[in-house]
Amino acid sequence: MSDTTLLAAAGPAAPTIGALRPLGLRATTLHPDGLLGAWQHRNSTASLPHCLDQLEAAGNVGNLRRVTTGAGEFRGMWFADSDVYKTLEAVAWEIGRGTGSVEVLDDFTTLLEQAQDADGYLNSYFQTDHRDEQWAALVWSHELYCAGHLIQAAVAASRAGVGDRLLAVARRFADLLVARFSVEDGVCGHPEIETALVELYRETEHRPYLDLAARFVELRGRGLLGDEPRFGRHYYQDHLPVREADEVTGHAVRQLYLLAGVVDVAVETGDAGLLDAAARLWESAFGTKTYLTGAHGSRHRDEAFGDPYELPPDRAYAETCAAIASFSWNWRMLLATGGHRYADELERVLYNGIAGSTARDGTHFFYSNPLQLRTGHEGSHEDAPSERLSWYSCACCPPNLARLVASLQSYVATTTDAGVQVHLYAAGRVETPFGVVDVATDYPWDGRVTLTVTPSSPGTEWTLDLRIPGWCTSATLDGSPVAGDYASVTRAWQPGEQVVLSLPMEPRVTSAHPRVDAVRGCVALLRGPLVYCLEQADLDVRREDVRLEDVRLDDGAPIEAEPRDGAIPVVLTAHGAVASSEGAPLYGGGPSGERAPVTLTAIPYFLWANREPGAMRVWIPTATGPRS
Amino acid sequence: MSDTTLLAAAGPAAPTIGALRPLGLRATTLHPDGLLGAWQHRNSTASLPHCLDQLEAAGNVGNLRRVTTGAGEFRGMWFADSDVYKTLEAVAWEIGRGTGSVEVLDDFTTLLEQAQDADGYLNSYFQTDHRDEQWAALVWSHELYCAGHLIQAAVAASRAGVGDRLLAVARRFADLLVARFSVEDGVCGHPEIETALVELYRETEHRPYLDLAARFVELRGRGLLGDEPRFGRHYYQDHLPVREADEVTGHAVRQLYLLAGVVDVAVETGDAGLLDAAARLWESAFGTKTYLTGAHGSRHRDEAFGDPYELPPDRAYAETCAAIASFSWNWRMLLATGGHRYADELERVLYNGIAGSTARDGTHFFYSNPLQLRTGHEGSHEDAPSERLSWYSCACCPPNLARLVASLQSYVATTTDAGVQVHLYAAGRVETPFGVVDVATDYPWDGRVTLTVTPSSPGTEWTLDLRIPGWCTSATLDGSPVAGDYASVTRAWQPGEQVVLSLPMEPRVTSAHPRVDAVRGCVALLRGPLVYCLEQADLDVRREDVRLEDVRLDDGAPIEAEPRDGAIPVVLTAHGAVASSEGAPLYGGGPSGERAPVTLTAIPYFLWANREPGAMRVWIPTATGPRS
Repeated sequence: MSDTTLLAAAGPAAPTIGALRPLGLRATTLHPDGLLGAWQHRNSTASLPHCLDQLEAAGNVGNLRRVTTGAGEFRGMWFADSDVYKTLEAVAWEIGRGTGSVEVLDDFTTLLEQAQDADGYLNSYFQTDHRDEQWAALVWSHELYCAGHLIQAAVAASRAGVGDRLLAVARRFADLLVARFSVEDGVCGHPEIETALVELYRETEHRPYLDLAARFVELRGRGLLGDEPRFGRHYYQDHLPVREADEVTGHAVRQLYLLAGVVDVAVETGDAGLLDAAARLWESAFGTKTYLTGAHGSRHRDEAFGDPYELPPDRAYAETCAAIASFSWNWRMLLATGGHRYADELERVLYNGIAGSTARDGTHFFYSNPLQLRTGHEGSHEDAPSERLSWYSCACCPPNLARLVASLQSYVATTTDAGVQVHLYAAGRVETPFGVVDVATDYPWDGRVTLTVTPSSPGTEWTLDLRIPGWCTSATLDGSPVAGDYASVTRAWQPGEQVVLSLPMEPRVTSAHPRVDAVRGCVALLRGPLVYCLEQADLDVRREDVRLEDVRLDDGAPIEAEPRDGAIPVVLTAHGAVASSEGAPLYGGGPSGERAPVTLTAIPYFLWANREPGAMRVWIPTATGPRS
Repeated sequence: MSDTTLLAAAGPAAPTIGALRPLGLRATTLHPDGLLGAWQHRNSTASLPHCLDQLEAAGNVGNLRRVTTGAGEFRGMWFADSDVYKTLEAVAWEIGRGTGSVEVLDDFTTLLEQAQDADGYLNSYFQTDHRDEQWAALVWSHELYCAGHLIQAAVAASRAGVGDRLLAVARRFADLLVARFSVEDGVCGHPEIETALVELYRETEHRPYLDLAARFVELRGRGLLGDEPRFGRHYYQDHLPVREADEVTGHAVRQLYLLAGVVDVAVETGDAGLLDAAARLWESAFGTKTYLTGAHGSRHRDEAFGDPYELPPDRAYAETCAAIASFSWNWRMLLATGGHRYADELERVLYNGIAGSTARDGTHFFYSNPLQLRTGHEGSHEDAPSERLSWYSCACCPPNLARLVASLQSYVATTTDAGVQVHLYAAGRVETPFGVVDVATDYPWDGRVTLTVTPSSPGTEWTLDLRIPGWCTSATLDGSPVAGDYASVTRAWQPGEQVVLSLPMEPRVTSAHPRVDAVRGCVALLRGPLVYCLEQADLDVRREDVRLEDVRLDDGAPIEAEPRDGAIPVVLTAHGAVASSEGAPLYGGGPSGERAPVTLTAIPYFLWANREPGAMRVWIPTATGPRS
C-alpha cells in the first residue's frame, strides 16, 4: 500500500453521492498536542490496548476460540462478539493511519476464519450451546447486529489496505444474509446491519448488499418483531415504518443506528423521500430530545428517548454509544446535504457527550453520562455512575469509543468540486486534491485558527469553506466580520498563503426551552463548543452542611474565563451564593435561609469525575429564577 | 361468630403492645355516602369481583389447580400465587365486615389444601415444572414472599372468624419454614414474610413464628443474597443490617414491606433499638424521598428510591404497592408510638397516592402513579401510564388495593386506657369500649366533623382525641381554636353529647425543598388533605398549539375553591397565563413570547385520568419563578 492509496481510501462512511465528499483515510493528520490529536494518541496507546486486554480477560476472545475447541464456558453477553468486531475496526483504522498492528488484525482474522461455518455463519453464542436457536428469534438474538459489526471491521480493514482476508470472512457471512433475508421477511431487534451492508456495498460495489440494507429499512415498522411486552414496539422502532415516523422513540442507540443506515440507503439509492424522513426525525431528536451535551436517551429502564422535552439531567441515560451513534448519523446527514447544523451537532456531541465518557487515563469509561450527580449518590454502577469503570458486563461503549477515536481525523474536513470545507477545528494537516491545509490552533481552548494553504496547482482558484459554529456570533476572518454558516474564501491560492479565522470565546449563559421542566430556573455555562459544569471539589466553602445543591448563580454577574496550567486549561468563574437548606421540610418549608456569597468555578463537563467522586451539575439554579 | 367477637377481633396489624391499640374488625363502619365508605363499597362490589375474575382469566387459579391435575401450562409471573393470596385476604376482610363470601373463601381453601405438599410446602410454580429449583435461589424465587401473603390471608380469615382451615394450611407452611430457616441462614429477596410471621404469632401465640421473623430481620444486610449484578445489594436491602442503615434505598416496595416487618418485630420483642432504626429510616423516607402525594419510588429501572431529593414528577415510579406498603408501615409506627406525623402520612398517601391508582369504575388501575404526564406521551403501559389498565402481567397492585380497602375501616380510630383517638375523618360509626362515636362529615370535601358520643357508661370520664392534620393551622373545636397534634376532649360523656371539629380548608399553595431540582420554580395546589392537579381537559384555551406545558400560575393571585355537582365535588380555580413556545429552539431561545391570561381549573389528583387521556401536572410553574 502507498500513502497515495490511503489518501484516496475512504474512512468511515463513504457515500458515492452527496453534497460533500469525505477525504481519504490518511488525508488528515491530527497533531498530538491538540485536544483531538492528544485524544487520538491516548486512544491508540491506552484505550485500544486496554480494550484488547479486556476482551481476553472478559472472555470475548475465548468465546470465539471455543467455537473450534469447545473448551470452557461461553462468557458475557450473547452479543459479546460485537465487542471484538468493534475493537478490530479500531485496530483497522489505526493501521489505516499508520499506527496500528497488522499482526493483531491478522491473528483475529485467523481466529474468525477458523470459527466461521462453511456456509458463512459466524456467531460464537449460537454456534456453540445455542445452535438450535440460530436465526430463531431475531427480536433479541443480535445476530444481524453482530454481523453488522463484523462487516464494519472488515470494511475498515479493507480501506486500510490490509483487509482482504477479513473482508472475505465478512462477505461470506453477508452472502449468507443476502441468500436468506432477500426471501425471508425479518429484521434485527437491534439495527446496525443496515449501515454495515451499505458500507460493504460501497467497498465491493456488489449491489445485493445495498438492496438487502434497503429491504431491512423498508421491512422495519411492520410488526415483524412482534410485541415488546414491557416497552412496546417503539422500543425497537418497529411501531411505524421510518417513512411515516415523525418522532424519535424507544431505545436510543437502536433508533440512531437505524437512522445512520437510513441515510446511507437513501443516499446510495437516490431516495429523496427516505432522506426527508431522516431529516424529519432529526427535527424531533434535536428540537425536543437532545441534552445540552449532545447526548440522547432520557430513560434508564428501556435505555430510551423520553417524551418531547423530557430531559432530566440527573437521570439522563445519555449512553456513550448513543452519542457515538448520533455522531455517525450527523456525519452522514452532513455529507448528504452539506447542512451546517449537522456539523454543529458533530462538534457538540464530540466535545461533550462523547469526550466526557472517557477518563483522563484513557482506560476508564462511563456507560451513562448524566448532567448531574447529587450529594449522597449511592455509588457507581452502570445505571447510576459516579465514577468511570474500567469495563462493563455489557461492554458496548469502550470499543465503540475506540473505533470512533481511531478514525477521528476523517471527520475534520470534506471536499467538493469547488474546494475544501473544514468542519472541526483541530491542530493538524489536511491533504486534499486542491492542496494541503495546515491548521494551527489551540481550539477548543482558544478560538483563533490559522490555516496555511499549500495549493496543488498554485494560482488555481478554489474555495476554502470554514464552518462558523452556531455558538459564535462574532466571528472574523482576517479581522473582518463574517456571518452565515461557513466563511468562504475563494482565491487563486499561492503557497504559504494564510487565513486567520477568529471565533471569540466569550463565556456564555444559556437556558433551556421552557418546556424542559427538569432544569427550570437554571442556566448552564458554556465557552466555545464546551459545556461547563460545577463540581463539589471546586466549591470553596468548607462548612460541612453546604452542598453543591445549595448553590445559586448570580445571573446578572459576569462570567470570567480564567486560564489555568495543568489538566484544565480554562475554567470559568462566576459569582454566586450558597445557603444551606439542610433539615428543612420536604414540602412547604419556604425559601432557604441567609445566603453567603461564593465564587463558583466551573470546569469543562468532559473533564468531570477525574478527581474524587462528588456532586456535579451542568444546570445551575439562578438566584432570580426562571426567565419564562 | 358473633358481632361481639368481631368487635374484638383484630384487623390488619394487631400488636400486643404499643402506644395505641387498634379497634376490632367490625368496630368501625364507614357510611357508603362518605368518600371512604363509597370507596370501600366500590371495592366490595366492583374491584374485588374484578380481581377474582382476572385471577381466573390470567391463569393464577389455574396454576394452583395444575399442582394436582398437571393440566395446561403455568401462566404469569412465578410469584402469581401471591395475587391469589392477596385477593383471598380481601375476601376475608369483607367477610369480617359482613359483606364477603364465605363460599369463595372455602373453595379457595379447598384448592390450597389439595395443592399443598405433605410437608406443608405450597407454591404452584416450584411444585410443578420447577421442583428442582425449590428453595434453591431465595434471591429471586419469592417463595417466602408468597408464603407471607398466604399467611396474611389466613390471619385475616381467622380474625374474620371463618379461617380455621386456611389457618391450618398457613401454619403447616409456617411450621415448615420454622423447621428449615431456624437453622439455615437465608432471607427472601423480597421482604414480606417478616410482617406475616409476626401477625401469625399474634393470631396463634406460637412464639417460633415471631422468633423466625426476628431472625429474618437480623439476617438481612449480611450479604446472604449475594451481589445484585445491575443494581447492587441496596436493591433488596441486603447492603447493611437494618440497625445500621440510615437511608431508605433500593426497590421501594421491598424496603417498605421490610420496615413494616421491622416495626412488628420491634414491638413484639420490645426491641427499642430496632424501633429506633425504623424511626431513623422514616426520617430518610419522609424527609428526603417522598412525593407530595405520599408515594415512593423515583426510578423506573429498579422500581427504586432515588438519591435524596431526587423526585421527578414525570418519571415518578410511585408504585401503587409502595404506597400501600407506606400506609402499612405508618400504621404500625402510629400504633407503636402514637406519633401524630405517622397519622398525617396515612392520610396523605391514602387520599392521594393510593386513591389515585383506581379509576372511578373500580376496575382499572395504575401500577405507576406519576405526578405529571406530558403532551405527546407515547402511550399507556406499566412503565409510562397515561390510562389505567384493567390488569397487569405483574398484577401485584390491584389485589393489594383490594385487601387494603376491604379493611379500610380498621384504620380510622384507636383506643388507649384513657380513651379514643380518631385519626382519619370519615362519615361512619366507631364502636369502642368507652362507647359509640358517630361521625358526621363530608370530609375531605368539607372540614366540619361532628362527633356524637353514646358512652358505654354515661358520666364516666374519658378522653376523645381528634387529630389536627398537619396541613391545618386554624382548627377549632366547638368554635374555640385548638392547637397541637390532637384536640383532646376529656369529659364525663353523656349520651348524645356532640363535639364539632372544624378544619378550615382554605386552598393552599406549597413548594418543595430547594434541593428538589425537578420542580424548581413550581408550586402545587392543595386543599384539605387533597393534592390537586391540572389536566389538559380543563384548559380553557382552544388554540391547538397551546399545551398544558405552556401554562404559568400567577402566584400572587387568589386560589378559589368552587363546589361542583357530579364527580368532582370541589375544584380549585386560579389565575394564570399561557404562552406557546412551540418551535422555539431547545437551548438558548430565551423566554417564551406574549402571554394570554387564562383561568386554571385544578381537580383532585386522585381523580385524574378519568376523562380522555391527556397532559396532567401537579407541579405548576409560577410566573415569577422559584422562591429560593
